[in-house]
Order: sequence, then C-alpha cells, then structure tokens
Amino acid sequence: MKKKINIKTLAAELNLSVATISKAFKDSHEISKATKERVLAMASTLNYTPNPYASSLRKRKSNTIAVILPEVADNFFSLAINGIQAVAEKKGYHVLIYLSHEKFDIEKTIVDDCNSGRVDGVLISITKETKTAEHIQKLQDENIPVVFFDREFEGFKTARVVTNDYECGYLAAKHLIEKGCKKPAFFSISSSLPICIKRADGFKAGLIESGLYSHKKDPIVYFTDFNQEETFNQIKKLVTGKDRPDGVVASVEKLAVILYLVCHEKNIKIPEEIKVIAFSTVDTAPIFNPSLSTITQSAFEIGKAASEILFKGIEKKNYDITNEYVVIPSTFFERKSSQQTSASKEKKIK
Amino acid sequence: MKKKINIKTLAAELNLSVATISKAFKDSHEISKATKERVLAMASTLNYTPNPYASSLRKRKSNTIAVILPEVADNFFSLAINGIQAVAEKKGYHVLIYLSHEKFDIEKTIVDDCNSGRVDGVLISITKETKTAEHIQKLQDENIPVVFFDREFEGFKTARVVTNDYECGYLAAKHLIEKGCKKPAFFSISSSLPICIKRADGFKAGLIESGLYSHKKDPIVYFTDFNQEETFNQIKKLVTGKDRPDGVVASVEKLAVILYLVCHEKNIKIPEEIKVIAFSTVDTAPIFNPSLSTITQSAFEIGKAASEILFKGIEKKNYDITNEYVVIPSTFFERKSSQQTSASKEKKIK
Repeated sequence: MKKKINIKTLAAELNLSVATISKAFKDSHEISKATKERVLAMASTLNYTPNPYASSLRKRKSNTIAVILPEVADNFFSLAINGIQAVAEKKGYHVLIYLSHEKFDIEKTIVDDCNSGRVDGVLISITKETKTAEHIQKLQDENIPVVFFDREFEGFKTARVVTNDYECGYLAAKHLIEKGCKKPAFFSISSSLPICIKRADGFKAGLIESGLYSHKKDPIVYFTDFNQEETFNQIKKLVTGKDRPDGVVASVEKLAVILYLVCHEKNIKIPEEIKVIAFSTVDTAPIFNPSLSTITQSAFEIGKAASEILFKGIEKKNYDITNEYVVIPSTFFERKSSQQTSASKEKKIK
Repeated sequence: MKKKINIKTLAAELNLSVATISKAFKDSHEISKATKERVLAMASTLNYTPNPYASSLRKRKSNTIAVILPEVADNFFSLAINGIQAVAEKKGYHVLIYLSHEKFDIEKTIVDDCNSGRVDGVLISITKETKTAEHIQKLQDENIPVVFFDREFEGFKTARVVTNDYECGYLAAKHLIEKGCKKPAFFSISSSLPICIKRADGFKAGLIESGLYSHKKDPIVYFTDFNQEETFNQIKKLVTGKDRPDGVVASVEKLAVILYLVCHEKNIKIPEEIKVIAFSTVDTAPIFNPSLSTITQSAFEIGKAASEILFKGIEKKNYDITNEYVVIPSTFFERKSSQQTSASKEKKIK
C-alpha cells in the first residue's frame, strides 16, 4: 500500500512545524519566501496537495458513504439504493446519493468531492461517457474504498458486483429464435459500457449459434444520444421501414418502453409482428399491453452485496477488497411480449 | 431575523479569547473550573451549542444542497430531482440526495446531519410519519434556507412549492361520476400527509356535490402500512368483496399498479367493472393494459421552482424566502382506464 503523505510527514521531512507548513501553503506573510519555496518543492517531490478541508475532516469519520449513479429514473437504481441503504442503516451510516446524469464531467466533479473527506467509501455505477478511471484511482490513493456495481470500469482493479450479462443476452437471443424470430435486433444505449457490450455479445453469440448472424448486417442498433424524442423517431423509422426486426432485445427498459409507444402509435402488434424482451426491473411489466418479457436483475441484492463489501473495506483498514468479484444472476420472466403466435408459427413453416 | 450566536459573540460577551472558549468546551485542563462554568452558563443563556465541526466548515461554503425525499422509486421524485439538478448545475452546486424511506427517525437524523455544515440549503419532501417540524426549525435557526416541495409540513413557515391537489381530487371524482360510477373510492397512503388529505378532500367534495357522498360509509380507503404484499391482499379483499367500488382514484401510482395487478389476477375488467385514475407521473401509463388515466404533476417544474427559490435564499443573505408559495397545476390525461363503457352506461339508465 502506498505510503500516506500528509502535512505531518511533510513537516517531519523538512524539520519544520506543521503550523509553519500550513501557513506557508496559505502564503502567510509570517513565513519567509525561502521557506515557502522549500515547502512547495518538497510537497511537489512527495506529490502532496494541501487540502485543509480534508485534513480537518479526516480526523473524524464522516459515517457517510456515497452512491454515484447515472440516474434514478431507472427502476434498477431505485431498488439498488434500497439494498445499499438497508446495509448502511444497520451500520449507522448516512447514504449520500449523487447523480452523474450520464455525464463524465459531473461524475469527475462528484468523485473529487467525495475525495475531500466528505465520505468514508464510494459505490459507483459509471456513466456511458466514462473512458478513464483516473478520478477513481485518486479515491484509492486516499484509502477510500470503492466498489463498482452494475456498471464497472473494466481493467481498473477494485471490488465489483455485477450480473451475468453475457449469458442473459445469449438466452434472450435463443428465446426469440425459438419463438420464431428470423431477424431479431439488439437495442443498445452504448457501444462502450461493459454491461451493454456483454449483453450484445451474448445476443450475437446466440444468433451465430443459430446460423442467423449475418456479417453484412449488424444486428446491434445503437441509441447513444439519449433524448426521448429523438430515440422515438429513430425507433419509429426502424420499425416502419423495410428492415424492421421481428424481435427486439432492449438493453434497458427505457428503450422497450419507447418501442411499445411506437408500436401503439403505429398499430404494430406485439408479439405478432415484433417480439420484445427487455433487461428491466420495472414492476409494471406484467400490466403492460401486452405484458413485457423481462430479464430482471436482482437489483436490491446487487446493492446489498456491493454495500457489504464496501463496509468490509471501511471497517477493516488492512483488508484489501480490490479482489472481490461477485456475480448475482438475473432471472428471465417470460410474458406475452415474446410469445409464439400463429403468425410466427407460419413463418417457421415456410 | 434571529441574531446569529457563534463562538465569537460568546467570547466577546465573556471578554475571553475564542481559544479559551473552545478549550473550555473541550473540558481542557488548561482552563479553570470557574471559567468553564462561566462559559457554560453564558452559552446556555445565549442558547449556543458548540459545534466545532460546523464552525470549521462554515468558514467555507459547502457549495452543496441537500434534497431529502421519502423514496426515489416513485417517478415523481426522479423527475423532481432532475429539475433540482438542472438549476444546481448552472450554479455550480452539488446535489446530495438523502432518502428517508418514509421513516421520521431517518428524516430527523438526515436533517441534523444537514445542520452540521455539510450543505448550504435543504429541499425537503416530508415522510408520512412526520408530525413535528422541530428538526426543520433547527435548520432555519442556523440560517440554512429550507424549501418544502410536494409534501409540505403545514403550519411551519417556510417556502413551499406544491400542486393543486384539492382541485385535482375534485376533478377526478367528477370525472368518474360523469363516466357512470355510483360508488367510487379514494385510495390513500396516509391520513396525515397534507397532499393526501387535500386530494381526498377534493374527491369527497366532488361526491358531495353529486349527491353520492354517504356519511355512513367513508369513501376513503387507507393503505398506511406500505408493504406491497399486504396492500395487494387488502385490495384483493376489497375488490372481490360485496362492497367493491366501481371506480378508484389512487393517491399515488403504486396503489394503481397494485390495483391493476389484482384486477389482472382476478380477471376484473378495467374500465368495465372498475374505473381507475391515478395521481402519477409514470411515463408508461399509455402502455398499461388498459392505458391508465392520470393526474400528472409537473414534477420537473416543481423541482426546478423549489430549487430556484432555495438559491435565492442561499445567494441573498438578507432575502427572506419563507413567504414564497408556488402552486404548479397538474394535468389530467384521460385514457382508457376511466372510459365510459356500455356496462356503465346501462347502469346510468336504470
């Protein structure tokens, strides 16, 4: 573990008092120019950044953990928060929820804020835009434990709690094919988020195995700019065009909802003309028209497991959580939206 | 405005140094017993509680606001958060979201935490259990501006942003009666939350006006212990019993969703046998089976307006926000779940 540099080590190194160092950083007139330069040079050598706010707070524990999420409108995150809070409450900890709104800049500012002594640990599900983990590295440098849940940053070593996305994508493809689909498509919100890639890869593997994968035509459709109206128009164009898929696996529930809205508007019948499966935890899926087949993540359990690992890191100072890796499988709920119909049966016979 | 008592005013009052006061509070051996007693007596007289954490932090602004909510699973709060965050982002402020999970104890702990210098302002929607505003009074005592949104605590003087609940309850009742209902009911989650009371009162007024209100039978049904399974069973008992209402106005979307699930299970037809209207912002209402009529709050606008008022309080130190009162009207979306059917028409003729 990296040696912790604080104002005391810096003072010891320079054989000066902590007060002198502190005043030097504040550019006090009480300190000579020469001393200030010595302090800054050593701080630079030791890679120490003064943060009086953090140091004053670090003395007392914040008894607070942060949860950083891209959004809460998605039911998954609401449920995951409940799982997190269930654990935190028992420990007597506050839970601060921060929303990054899928923007990397916001995520970075939030993470930096978490690094100022405000919290004792961080649970994070990254944005679609996150292409580096440097900001998260800084938390670890400050010995603030970090756990990824649901959306991880691949290649960065820390604890992770995820679900079996690849298997579920594969299962969804096989299910649609079994029910008569000849040209199913996968609707994705990102070409870089590991969960989306894994779900899409599994889906593609199912198609390849069934001989339905064509290298000429990618079955993955991206809706990366998540503007509701624009996505609505994009989906409308797709399902009313000649290349309409006869089955869709939606990587998130929002895309399935928009697909339903389009189909209702254009009078396209689900499941007769298009079958739908969504990765979703929405509790209203059974009362959709028609009821929606879902691959449902154990959101509460994922939040709970992530939180439990985090507290191991917070409570046991020498316990290394970075190797923790938990996979909590999802459940497939088959409903009407992916049912075989006489129309799809006929197609199969031809 | 109440004069702010801090360690400096206390020191000035006693003609002692701030350091001495501080040491006295820490029961330091450097301070004589007599001085300690003088300090404590004066602190008591001035109603000053030492809070070194707060005072050290208060020197710098936190650039953070808190949003305290009962839950996020409800779409209303997700959307309201977006409205709040849209304003805060422009101001360069962090938004911390705290969930009280409808428990007063948790809400109180959170509010106390907000009072420790962590935030510059608080937006709050109270729990069902909140019967006092003393904890909120403490925030105001510390000059931390507070704005209620959606769920206010009546009788406590501070800024409020709400919707026209009474009118909407009235409108919903009149609509159901117009569509043929003879014994509509109102499903409520609380007998004390102002929003629920106002919605129910408006509903009752609609019934009274139409001569459908019977003093022998209260049309308001309470589901106060919000356990999904229990509520499901309660609703099942009600709609399969002889006193089944022929129309329901649900005070929150969750109750409408459970009513739908019960009707699907028991094969009770909506709207033929029971008509449904819900206070709800759920974006999937049009794809429910059947599509759900909703009274939809402008959740984003409510969050935005509340946030704008809060920032007036934060930025203009002498600006009194406690008189601000904004009502943002809701919109009624008539869909299939409350449609007149031949069955209800027949009833009307009889």
